[in-house]
Amino acid sequence: MSNAIPSGYQLVRPEWLVAFQAQHEGQVAHDDEARAAVAIALSALSIDNGGGPFGAAVFDHANGRLLSVGCNLVMPANCSLWHAEMVALLFAQHSLQRFDLGPLPLTLATSCEPCVMCLGATLWSGVARVVSAATDADARAIGFDEGPKPADWAGALRERGVEVVTEVKRAEAQRELQRYVATGGVIYNAHRQ
Amino acid sequence: MSNAIPSGYQLVRPEWLVAFQAQHEGQVAHDDEARAAVAIALSALSIDNGGGPFGAAVFDHANGRLLSVGCNLVMPANCSLWHAEMVALLFAQHSLQRFDLGPLPLTLATSCEPCVMCLGATLWSGVARVVSAATDADARAIGFDEGPKPADWAGALRERGVEVVTEVKRAEAQRELQRYVATGGVIYNAHRQ
Repeated sequence: MSNAIPSGYQLVRPEWLVAFQAQHEGQVAHDDEARAAVAIALSALSIDNGGGPFGAAVFDHANGRLLSVGCNLVMPANCSLWHAEMVALLFAQHSLQRFDLGPLPLTLATSCEPCVMCLGATLWSGVARVVSAATDADARAIGFDEGPKPADWAGALRERGVEVVTEVKRAEAQRELQRYVATGGVIYNAHRQ
Repeated sequence: MSNAIPSGYQLVRPEWLVAFQAQHEGQVAHDDEARAAVAIALSALSIDNGGGPFGAAVFDHANGRLLSVGCNLVMPANCSLWHAEMVALLFAQHSLQRFDLGPLPLTLATSCEPCVMCLGATLWSGVARVVSAATDADARAIGFDEGPKPADWAGALRERGVEVVTEVKRAEAQRELQRYVATGGVIYNAHRQ
């Protein structure tokens, strides 16, 4: 019996995602507009490659360098944990080999405001700043549930020392969400009987 | 440069955790007391093995069989995502190869009420029931932050169709949290400057 118990779990990122990081890691994202643009580009590529319509990336905002990228892999990886922010934070911590990014000048850029799970993950990651593009209303407008978030989610992060900037390139991110629906993308909230 | 970009991520569960599952998977947990006892036993073993003081497991409540186990691996795996519930849900979905546990009769048992991240992860996992032992006040009492959860987190899950049973074997779970502190366990909330 015990032979069947997995001792480990492997998350494999799609080749296009690794290639994207390789192409972008030498570039410099000087400001939040440039960082949001990367997250939105990841959301667009995720749609084109059969994933959910969300992208995220972690940057060193002191020098503008890209540290990690993520996109929504719920369906491709068959696991509901893999929202874009979770993937980006996982690989940021993995590449630095630390569970607390707190002392570092790091920004999480995401194509859409975090859901309740990613809100918590952002907080526990220690990331210093969050920059988001589309709003949770934009996500809800196409049928995604953001969960029981505090009404003032940004305030909840700010109270705990995280800087938050919202609606950076919102229209561009919204367009990708709407393209996902228009091209028949699946709204994969958990099924309830 | 691109050679340095990790294409995958591997989470390795400690040997004792895999051995625990092997020992318990043939047993039947008939009721929530038995399921909470397994989660608490995992929290105790996690402390003994240098991890955080939290354990969780997923059971099929139709037949009482154990499906997956988890414990807090934030420090051992160097990643803030790996709360006990996240590990248990990850392996439950991995073993069933599905991102939505919704149609199945599955219960997540946890030694302590979920934090805001795990609250969201529970919801997105599709798990039908949550059974918790210690309360978030018990976790906060030893210095852990539970994050910006809704005041009525259980109500927020119930509204979305998840059954919630709290304070099952709370005293036993509390004892483990207190033992963690008494034996010098680290309270590893993210550092804020």
